[in-house]
Amino acid sequence: MTDTICALATAPGGAIGIIRISGPQALEILSHVFTKDVSQAQPNTIHYGHIKDRAEMIDEVMVSLFRAPHSYTGEDSVEISCHGSRYILNKVLALLIENGCRQANPGEFTQRAFLNGKIDLSQAEAVADLIASTNRATHQIAMSQLRGNFSSQLAQLREQLLKLTSLLELELDFSDHEDLEFADRSELLELTKTIDNHITRLAHSFETGQALKQGIPVAIVGKTNVGKSTLLNALLKDDRAIVSDIHGTTRDTIEETMDINGIQFRFIDTAGLRKTDDEVEQIGIERTIQKIKQARIVIWLLDQRPTWSEIDEMHELSKGKKCIYIHNKADLIDIHKFNPYILPLSMISAKTGKGISNLKKRIFEEAERVGLTSNANDVIVTNARHYDALTRAHDHIQRVIDGLQMQLSGDLLSEDLRQALDTLAEITGGQITPNEVLGNIFKNFCVGK
Amino acid sequence: MTDTICALATAPGGAIGIIRISGPQALEILSHVFTKDVSQAQPNTIHYGHIKDRAEMIDEVMVSLFRAPHSYTGEDSVEISCHGSRYILNKVLALLIENGCRQANPGEFTQRAFLNGKIDLSQAEAVADLIASTNRATHQIAMSQLRGNFSSQLAQLREQLLKLTSLLELELDFSDHEDLEFADRSELLELTKTIDNHITRLAHSFETGQALKQGIPVAIVGKTNVGKSTLLNALLKDDRAIVSDIHGTTRDTIEETMDINGIQFRFIDTAGLRKTDDEVEQIGIERTIQKIKQARIVIWLLDQRPTWSEIDEMHELSKGKKCIYIHNKADLIDIHKFNPYILPLSMISAKTGKGISNLKKRIFEEAERVGLTSNANDVIVTNARHYDALTRAHDHIQRVIDGLQMQLSGDLLSEDLRQALDTLAEITGGQITPNEVLGNIFKNFCVGK
Repeated sequence: MTDTICALATAPGGAIGIIRISGPQALEILSHVFTKDVSQAQPNTIHYGHIKDRAEMIDEVMVSLFRAPHSYTGEDSVEISCHGSRYILNKVLALLIENGCRQANPGEFTQRAFLNGKIDLSQAEAVADLIASTNRATHQIAMSQLRGNFSSQLAQLREQLLKLTSLLELELDFSDHEDLEFADRSELLELTKTIDNHITRLAHSFETGQALKQGIPVAIVGKTNVGKSTLLNALLKDDRAIVSDIHGTTRDTIEETMDINGIQFRFIDTAGLRKTDDEVEQIGIERTIQKIKQARIVIWLLDQRPTWSEIDEMHELSKGKKCIYIHNKADLIDIHKFNPYILPLSMISAKTGKGISNLKKRIFEEAERVGLTSNANDVIVTNARHYDALTRAHDHIQRVIDGLQMQLSGDLLSEDLRQALDTLAEITGGQITPNEVLGNIFKNFCVGK
Repeated sequence: MTDTICALATAPGGAIGIIRISGPQALEILSHVFTKDVSQAQPNTIHYGHIKDRAEMIDEVMVSLFRAPHSYTGEDSVEISCHGSRYILNKVLALLIENGCRQANPGEFTQRAFLNGKIDLSQAEAVADLIASTNRATHQIAMSQLRGNFSSQLAQLREQLLKLTSLLELELDFSDHEDLEFADRSELLELTKTIDNHITRLAHSFETGQALKQGIPVAIVGKTNVGKSTLLNALLKDDRAIVSDIHGTTRDTIEETMDINGIQFRFIDTAGLRKTDDEVEQIGIERTIQKIKQARIVIWLLDQRPTWSEIDEMHELSKGKKCIYIHNKADLIDIHKFNPYILPLSMISAKTGKGISNLKKRIFEEAERVGLTSNANDVIVTNARHYDALTRAHDHIQRVIDGLQMQLSGDLLSEDLRQALDTLAEITGGQITPNEVLGNIFKNFCVGK
């Protein structure tokens, strides 16, 4: 890591473009192309001057200086603020490369920040998540992770695991002295279970993390012609701008995402449910049942009073889901024909838009009720790599719990404890992280970060 | 101009995004959203901290501070370097606006730089040109203008005009003293002509400026089926990446631009020339003749030995143009069938690519020969507003020259001299510039510059 890297850190286009340089030669390479001598300048200062290619002036720029270790990467660094012309930016980059820089790989600045101990691996990953965040929920989770909330919970788990290990070693060292009092096994079991609960809680948050990242799945279900698509359109109408189409894997379901109070929801329009002998239609209905299973919230849309057997069927199909029962076509029907005691029904008209904003509020509240919203300091696992490590750590701890319950000797438990520690350390990169793992983590970053 | 403006200065997307603030309240507004107190900080320094919306952390940022008058706008200014998430950038902008900033209009930062006397109007316009520059030639012209080369030539003209004015006034003041010796009228005439030559030279450079900006027009002309389109494709093949289609106003000509040695050329493929009675085809040929007139360089493409009358016709059609005569289909024909004394012919094969790079060199040399390339410090007028002012200034000076030659009295010339001075001052904005003019100039800027 003795080379000096450079990259465009902003998107091309725009009024200004920033070129980043980092590495031991950052200032020396700058001196070959910058008209002002900044070799004696204070760090964290900004300097006006020109970038020149021999006699030719390339641009009038502002240069920001950072010195190791007080920079993003922990190395000597320079940021050149240029006019945002593609021609100029390419020219300046070419000039830096000509003078000894290497074009940075995706995420290489952040990778250096990690390798130089400025941030741990989970924080590095949070940087990419932060840049990719599109709503308040995903932004908060990434921000919390970047600020080290996840890392500090992992540090706490590590401390508890080390304590457990030393207690078991103590037991072992003095096992010949039968008269000495050892750590009570039931106390050890208690501590291990506390650790496991914490790990399990973190691992479980992955489901929430995925739902928040991809949008909380909400299925809109009902008979044919009850107005499901009209409802979907009515829900999306307000904020078409941030709607994106996600084409379902099945041809007959449409998914669209929408932001409610900073949380992303993924609405799934399903095929109409009805008793049928038609085989093709039966397949559509089977798929709808699958979609209900994948959803966290189910909106049942009705346009007439349901029969008791229909109510039973709805309860059966959406067991364990948060359900919202909605009566559509409020513009058409007589409210008195409904018995409000049968189901807590809200009246809407997908056609006129009546009741839609109330429905949105209901949807958000149901998400809150199942813990699918997040607060600024919540630790929610969104990364599959972290989830995988937590799951493996849980397995090791589970074996320790089993062993303690079977009164196994401490030396038989120590290997699983060590593995649990190592596995958790993978998340923050506290262990030496293999190059392939690093490569996988940083390859999805943008260049210049 | 007492309000404080903010805007995103980089294109959305990318690793980082820069938000600019400028105005008397820049630092105060920052203090409401930034976690670090920088009210006592030195100017031109960089500060690490967080942008917060009350308790919620929005981003981890670097803040650059500039104080009036040592900033781009000449006002107190702040640049916030954020993570490049659209969500974050929008949130920070919203937060700044909530705290008293106003969203900047396009070019408003540069407009303030002009109004605060940091740059003149022609330099402000050069900023937009610099950002829009796509090749070495347009970049050099904009850079030269930004660095004040055009402004200083205008200042020199202004000085000469003032000298002329004072000499004429002197003549007037002492006109009663018949025995006093006045400025020699022929000397005055000489000075005026020098001024006029300079203005005319600048005005004439506009044609070159336009050619360089839009691409130097090169018509590819020849009989039908001689391989014109194949040649165009062969020329463009090398650097498809920087080729852009410009659909001609006529349906039967195709224009494509290409960079040769940093100069942009605009190649115009024309309809085949042949004697015809077909009316529609005749219209196509008329258009080709028009295209030849608009071109600066004409490539005549042949695939057999031209007759003497054909040679005459070619000379006639491309009178006053730089011509390159090329024999295509070198792969097919016997070179000895050609008489090299008739025309200086180069052999190419558009199909195999033979001779294409030589042809490119020829095209560039022809452009150089007619002065269509530029050097770093050349002043070339590229702006229609400047051209218009120069043309009007020339008209006034022309009237002064006429007056001097007709021995008119100085007081009859002074009005035109004053108008010439005012007209030149319009270019740099030395006069009070009407708001509509400023509006027109800055409306085409990007936001954030």
